[in-house]
Amino acid sequence: MRIYDFEGLPNPARVRIALAEKGITDKVEFITINVPNGEHRKPEFLTKNPTAAIPVLELDDGTTISECTAITEYLDHMFDGISLTGKTPKQRAIIHMMQRRGERNLLDAAVDYFHHATPGLGPELETYQNREWGEKQRERALSGMRYFNTVLSAQPYIAGDSFSMADITVFAGLAFADFAKIDIPLDLKNLRVWREHIAKRPSIAG
Amino acid sequence: MRIYDFEGLPNPARVRIALAEKGITDKVEFITINVPNGEHRKPEFLTKNPTAAIPVLELDDGTTISECTAITEYLDHMFDGISLTGKTPKQRAIIHMMQRRGERNLLDAAVDYFHHATPGLGPELETYQNREWGEKQRERALSGMRYFNTVLSAQPYIAGDSFSMADITVFAGLAFADFAKIDIPLDLKNLRVWREHIAKRPSIAG
Ligand SMILES: N[C@@H](CCC(=O)N[C@@H](CS)C(=O)NCC(=O)O)C(=O)O
Ligand SMILES: N[C@@H](CCC(=O)N[C@@H](CS)C(=O)NCC(=O)O)C(=O)O
Repeated sequence: MRIYDFEGLPNPARVRIALAEKGITDKVEFITINVPNGEHRKPEFLTKNPTAAIPVLELDDGTTISECTAITEYLDHMFDGISLTGKTPKQRAIIHMMQRRGERNLLDAAVDYFHHATPGLGPELETYQNREWGEKQRERALSGMRYFNTVLSAQPYIAGDSFSMADITVFAGLAFADFAKIDIPLDLKNLRVWREHIAKRPSIAG
Repeated sequence: MRIYDFEGLPNPARVRIALAEKGITDKVEFITINVPNGEHRKPEFLTKNPTAAIPVLELDDGTTISECTAITEYLDHMFDGISLTGKTPKQRAIIHMMQRRGERNLLDAAVDYFHHATPGLGPELETYQNREWGEKQRERALSGMRYFNTVLSAQPYIAGDSFSMADITVFAGLAFADFAKIDIPLDLKNLRVWREHIAKRPSIAG
């Protein structure tokens, strides 16, 4: 398996954490796509992912898979070890629901704020910006944080009693919020405690 | 099982098609949430889905699941019959990837165009509109259509050789595009032929 990514970016981090949780990082060859230089928009990479984003998983038969959820589904069903997407229909449903909320209301919101209401990746790559809409996404990210803080008042992990893909998404969302300078409000204690706890997992602390 | 929805809206339609494909529509009690009247934003419904949207699946133990992908994961793993989310790790990955592209680049894009660049649900419900951003989403929906037209030049279904959740998403995306008056460009023949073919499935034609 190959993974096309760029170390340090939030979506690639999601897949790197999933790989480490499954204990299969050494089964993967990583190939750097220089997103800050726009390499992901070159024709060569677009044949791997026409939506021009990383990470992309390439299987040995040449099949290319984009989208962190799709890549995580593959890894989770292909390899033993901890279950990241759930074992029962109900667990699977809750994990997919919570991970989607984490994407839409936190990670993607923070990313969209960064690309629209800050200089983002710079004028060459940010070909369309809408500052007002970007500022709204900052509010959405903050309300996402408040929502997850409430969720964590009743349970230890984002989707219930065990670590899952949903925790990875929210963790990546907070990491990107830091990067985009959207501070976690001080009163969101559950979210802060959960984050410190997750950061100590070997898949993240190394 | 109960489903909270409103007939005719595109996301509820996704779950109704999934139920019919699995042959389990009669196992569900449907409860109408009057979205055009704002019932989905009332405190009573927010306890079922804090993100204020339909459809929501309620299990017999009271668990509530939002997000069509999560609901479809539940139904597909709980009941026999046609597989909507794939059987092998690779199929699962391709289906999740394509369904996500269908959401982001077609269905959600058309929905966002409707809410931002048209009167949408009217001034009481459309509390924030950004016309310029909405117009961009129309372009995104059109480029999503072009992308899927290309995909369908090489294979009969959105995720390969069989019908899946990805077809449901793209079909709902085109239905919403009609509603929002984003016409399918005439030259996208594969997409039009695929759509006519999908529309004849008993889960849709009835
Ligand atoms: N939903 C996608 C998001 C992928 C994504 O947006 N990746 C970023 C890097 S973190 C990217 O490649 N951005 C390129 C760009 O913004 O032009 C996923 O789950 O993989
Ligand atoms: N991603 C969600 C989307 C749900 C959604 O947006 N549903 C619409 C009806 S088609 C809704 O309830 N909209 C309420 C609103 O816009 O206020 C899903 O997969 O269920």
